[in-house]
Amino acid sequence: MGGDHGPAVTVCGAALLLDEHPAVFFQLHGDEVRINAELAKLPKLKARSVVIHTDQCVAMDEKPAQAIRRRNTSLSNAIHAVKSGEARAVISAGNTGALMALSKMILKMMTDDLERPAIGCSWPNKTGFGTVLDVGANVTSDARQLIEFALMGAAFHRAVHGVKKPSIGLLNVGSEDVKGHEEVREAHKLLRENTLGLNYYGFVEGTDLCAGTVDVTVTDGFTGNVALKTAEGTARFIKDLLKDAFKSGPMAMLGAVLAGSALKAMAKRIDPGASNGGPLLGLKGIVIKSHGGADARAFSNAIRVGLSLAASGYERDIVDSLAQFSQSLTVEASLAAGLKETSAAIAAGDKVN
Amino acid sequence: MGGDHGPAVTVCGAALLLDEHPAVFFQLHGDEVRINAELAKLPKLKARSVVIHTDQCVAMDEKPAQAIRRRNTSLSNAIHAVKSGEARAVISAGNTGALMALSKMILKMMTDDLERPAIGCSWPNKTGFGTVLDVGANVTSDARQLIEFALMGAAFHRAVHGVKKPSIGLLNVGSEDVKGHEEVREAHKLLRENTLGLNYYGFVEGTDLCAGTVDVTVTDGFTGNVALKTAEGTARFIKDLLKDAFKSGPMAMLGAVLAGSALKAMAKRIDPGASNGGPLLGLKGIVIKSHGGADARAFSNAIRVGLSLAASGYERDIVDSLAQFSQSLTVEASLAAGLKETSAAIAAGDKVN
Repeated sequence: MGGDHGPAVTVCGAALLLDEHPAVFFQLHGDEVRINAELAKLPKLKARSVVIHTDQCVAMDEKPAQAIRRRNTSLSNAIHAVKSGEARAVISAGNTGALMALSKMILKMMTDDLERPAIGCSWPNKTGFGTVLDVGANVTSDARQLIEFALMGAAFHRAVHGVKKPSIGLLNVGSEDVKGHEEVREAHKLLRENTLGLNYYGFVEGTDLCAGTVDVTVTDGFTGNVALKTAEGTARFIKDLLKDAFKSGPMAMLGAVLAGSALKAMAKRIDPGASNGGPLLGLKGIVIKSHGGADARAFSNAIRVGLSLAASGYERDIVDSLAQFSQSLTVEASLAAGLKETSAAIAAGDKVN
Repeated sequence: MGGDHGPAVTVCGAALLLDEHPAVFFQLHGDEVRINAELAKLPKLKARSVVIHTDQCVAMDEKPAQAIRRRNTSLSNAIHAVKSGEARAVISAGNTGALMALSKMILKMMTDDLERPAIGCSWPNKTGFGTVLDVGANVTSDARQLIEFALMGAAFHRAVHGVKKPSIGLLNVGSEDVKGHEEVREAHKLLRENTLGLNYYGFVEGTDLCAGTVDVTVTDGFTGNVALKTAEGTARFIKDLLKDAFKSGPMAMLGAVLAGSALKAMAKRIDPGASNGGPLLGLKGIVIKSHGGADARAFSNAIRVGLSLAASGYERDIVDSLAQFSQSLTVEASLAAGLKETSAAIAAGDKVN
């Protein structure tokens, strides 16, 4: 029950979701006085929720290392509810670092090879929505991790955006094979040789994100985070300029009134709230991060992402594809080990002579 | 005389620049028939230019390795003119990779420590323009390179955007000291300890680029290139949505007509042409890259950037600050070497006993 606005937004977001999906049941973790005050206004939601009280909560600026040492916080309780199977998904607008650290500690990663969750996001583009990952969890990523992101991103996009065989692009600074740093070139080579059942498109660039060239764009968490925040900042800048333009004189103001409904429809297409709900991928359980500043409508979108994942075969999908990938690596590793043994034997032979 | 549109745009761009700066003199390198055809329409420019003919030109998709082996291309001739001192700056809308490779080969880097030029760009923001670098030359950058970018970016911003002591930010995924990968954290530490005369602000994020939080934003060429292209793609996406919105019905169309002049003024603020002209920093000579698809007005902006640099003390400025930085590293290195000798002496003493 975190985020910048607390229960006023999160409880209200749950009510909005319930209007569309009346079969959902909610556990609301946090301060029962504040939560019940909201529920009192929402009898339909009240009938379909249970409040799990705690007066402990993780602050927005709390260090993850500190958060994981505390017991009975609303955040850790909510994640434990997923671990125990009482809930199918946890949705939080709270502290991202703490959410990630606690989720990893409580739920564990899907496989031992995965180091930490990748954060995905839905990116508005010309054709609807793309999926971009990682947007912040891993500041560096080797080729293996980039391929894991591709597999997890494809499973997420299939589950939430309904594309059966989503196309995958690797974010780079050009489209030729020689472009980019070692990690991205290595991942590109591996994906070209063995697509692991993926619909691999090749390299894409920053301009392709909004153009919707591919369904899923894969990158390391540093580049992905900078790209996401740059796009958000650019959109906000243009929106502000547009507002100023429409206020610049009586003719412009009249123009804005006349074009009002068309402009509103357009603003909806790029509303960050409409794409709210970033999954933490690779965990044994569904964890969704909402923007801290989300309003009730945006928070309900984040819940809907959790619901879509819960209703799909997404976890099985990821486990299977990661296992397939891991197996392909084992084959390569034993081939490589075989070659090594051969050369070792030759070297030993040399010594005898 | 390259770019997507050839002499029609570049010659015309030179004429536009001449209207504002009548004392400039031009060398126009390329096919004299095509260039003279344009000059025939522009008598004022014709009187202030000389055409250096060649029928060799570097293709837009030519590999840099191939381009540097060819002689007498319009691109290499133009760079040689800067080398010989006949011209103060070269401006090209052609092949970026070839421009960089040829410039490095012909002009050489300002100091032996610099590996390759960094590409800077002017970034429209709330306060006017910021400078961002590197936007594509170096796919990885260590801490030392990031600091070199900071020094060169500050010199460029001072010369072109007239800010005496520009503020510098390091692009990262958060503002705390622990955020980001090793290279960015190390550069941050060094800049905090010894600002080398820079007005160092600290870490900035993607949202800060358009917000104009700092004057100069420093990043590696991979992240910078992705950020730049993501911003361009986002701006284009919103522009297209806006166009569609204004065409969506008679009321919206009327609104667009009424708000027309205000919208045009706004579009000018984010027009990529207004910020056209990316310097290749760190070379012994002024080299400016124009967008390949620039129109005449945008190309004239790229020439103006070259002119501002030529009229400023920018080269001296960079050489001095790089020397100061190099000296500070030498001091650190000899301190470190001193420590090493001490420990070596102790180890030798151990052996004797």
